[in-house]
Amino acid sequence: MADVREHWIASIPGDGIGIEVIEQAHRVLKQLEKLSKTFKLHIDTFNWSSNDYLKTGEYIPADGLKTLKKYDAILFGAVGSPDVPDHISLWGLILPIRKMFNQYVNLRPIRVLPGLSSPLKHIDAQDLDWVIVRENSEGEYAGQGGTTHDDTPYTIANEVAVFTRQGIERTIRFAFDTASSRPRKHLTLVTKSNAQRHGLVLWDKIFYEVAAEYPDVKTDKMLVDAMTVRMVLKPSTLDTIVATNLHGDILSDLAAALSGSIGVAPSSNLNPTREFPSMFEPIHGSAPDIAGLGVANPVGTFWSVAEMLKWLGEQEAGEKLMKGIEKVTESGFKTKDIGGNADMVTVTEALLRELEN
Amino acid sequence: MADVREHWIASIPGDGIGIEVIEQAHRVLKQLEKLSKTFKLHIDTFNWSSNDYLKTGEYIPADGLKTLKKYDAILFGAVGSPDVPDHISLWGLILPIRKMFNQYVNLRPIRVLPGLSSPLKHIDAQDLDWVIVRENSEGEYAGQGGTTHDDTPYTIANEVAVFTRQGIERTIRFAFDTASSRPRKHLTLVTKSNAQRHGLVLWDKIFYEVAAEYPDVKTDKMLVDAMTVRMVLKPSTLDTIVATNLHGDILSDLAAALSGSIGVAPSSNLNPTREFPSMFEPIHGSAPDIAGLGVANPVGTFWSVAEMLKWLGEQEAGEKLMKGIEKVTESGFKTKDIGGNADMVTVTEALLRELEN
Ligand SMILES: CC(C)[C@H](C(=O)O)[C@@H](O)C(=O)O
Ligand SMILES: CC(C)[C@H](C(=O)O)[C@@H](O)C(=O)O
Repeated sequence: MADVREHWIASIPGDGIGIEVIEQAHRVLKQLEKLSKTFKLHIDTFNWSSNDYLKTGEYIPADGLKTLKKYDAILFGAVGSPDVPDHISLWGLILPIRKMFNQYVNLRPIRVLPGLSSPLKHIDAQDLDWVIVRENSEGEYAGQGGTTHDDTPYTIANEVAVFTRQGIERTIRFAFDTASSRPRKHLTLVTKSNAQRHGLVLWDKIFYEVAAEYPDVKTDKMLVDAMTVRMVLKPSTLDTIVATNLHGDILSDLAAALSGSIGVAPSSNLNPTREFPSMFEPIHGSAPDIAGLGVANPVGTFWSVAEMLKWLGEQEAGEKLMKGIEKVTESGFKTKDIGGNADMVTVTEALLRELEN
Repeated sequence: MADVREHWIASIPGDGIGIEVIEQAHRVLKQLEKLSKTFKLHIDTFNWSSNDYLKTGEYIPADGLKTLKKYDAILFGAVGSPDVPDHISLWGLILPIRKMFNQYVNLRPIRVLPGLSSPLKHIDAQDLDWVIVRENSEGEYAGQGGTTHDDTPYTIANEVAVFTRQGIERTIRFAFDTASSRPRKHLTLVTKSNAQRHGLVLWDKIFYEVAAEYPDVKTDKMLVDAMTVRMVLKPSTLDTIVATNLHGDILSDLAAALSGSIGVAPSSNLNPTREFPSMFEPIHGSAPDIAGLGVANPVGTFWSVAEMLKWLGEQEAGEKLMKGIEKVTESGFKTKDIGGNADMVTVTEALLRELEN
């Protein structure tokens, strides 16, 4: 069995519906492993959650990141709890992983899956086929800033967005590579360099420098506000999109909504140098209002798993999974958010059966 | 004629289609004045533009702001030219006016006008009836930040968003007053206080403090990314919205697109203390690609004029104008962007006739 490839996966279900969708993802991964026979998966689960934080004051134990570092990939559910302020939970769990492992690209493919429909009139499903390349390590999420004169009438708080040439350039290069690998070879830069005169102007400048090295990629440039208009009114004019951390965050949620539901969209937090593990997570959150009810949409997590498998070199399994997901949504095994009435386990089991075929 | 009210208006057409839509606005204002007999308008035009800048190095002449200050209101077209970087033109003309005159609220009503249709499926026109209250004086547009190690591999650029208690509080109060005056009395706060831990957390805190003084207003809170999803998928759950300068900028463009076109949406840059003139402008830009062709949609400017008249105390004329605009769009006098084939002057003249009735 010398040619069986082995992959070590750290699984972090987190909070709320993260816990249940990750459980379904494990079932799917085991099925794929069983069917393939050419790879073996070692999945270790880390139950780091807001409950832990409330008990211990920490999300990630002292040696946690060191432990994670040894894995080939991280599968993440969701974090967020009504009992912990969001800025504590996110800076306690998800943001440190993105930053420590230099996952500087957040890659978000958006398509209208078969059986789903866009809330937009007048578009065909194939009009909306985008990849958003979001800078994932700095910018508006740099974590700098602070508050002065707290609890006085003169309180002042700053958020400092930090943009570095290397941080911008590596993301833009990744975006050009992505665009160049897609049939339409088109890349749209999003900034707000009219109002934000420093970091965003630097984005524009580096974008055009790098563009010169990719003569095969057609480019254009949008302001983030006008970009939302184009996404809604002219979706077919877009292909690959590159944006800052915050702009990419906003635009990818909008994109997911325009594709039918935020419940199906995946995201890959990539360390393209492969020095550290990359992390795969659905773009939806922990949805405390429906947690534990078994009605969460597992498709965003399954699609993230497909992306993870491809990243790990298991192209065939990743594609098989993606085809399976599409068959399942097409056949009407859909949760309520995408117009069906199946529960989470029914969708998962439809997928497991589909994978057997 | 002692009871004729007089209003001094500074008109700044600016660049591109700004020039032609403002010309139409003047025709409409003159018609309203003629018909009303209870007010008189003095309109002075200031041709500050990118052309001027290219000649003189300045948009606003040395004493320009001092001159403007004497007016009761400013009517603005658009600024932006292919020959001047946007961050120069905007910080040269529009942003200094917003800031110098302490126009700390940018008010953006969004509705689906009669005869227009939302690009969203499954919604009735009345499901989308929002007012966005955008902070307009600080935040991400504070203008702080800079670049170090320029033209080296180590370039670093910062954008510093500045949030002050008084800046936030006055905008939030305005938003509560606005919500409280609307039938549904509902206000949604938008922040990104999970990722941005200083200024945005301060927004949350002040919002709930002020909320306690408005027991008649129902409130809720969204993250800016999730807000785009709610706007697309559940538009009828929203009423009044308050957000930071950048978030408000992005969400109001999205809102305009969801209401049918960015060409119809108005914006009021308000100095609620009335110490300084307020400024009224369509939310669209200078659109150099169609400038001079006579096909620009003048409705965003007309609606802005209606808001200006109401702000000046001419409630009746403002409402008459708004009704006229709605009659015109309903009767099919529409430019191409909203599905018609009328040119700008045809739309204007339909409105002039409508006002006579
Ligand atoms: C949970 C939150 C920190 C996160 C982000 O803002 O990046 C989420 O919205 C996302 O898009 O992954
Ligand atoms: C022109 C630009 C500076 C402006 C802004 O970003 O505020 C515009 O987009 C707007 O919304 O009025």
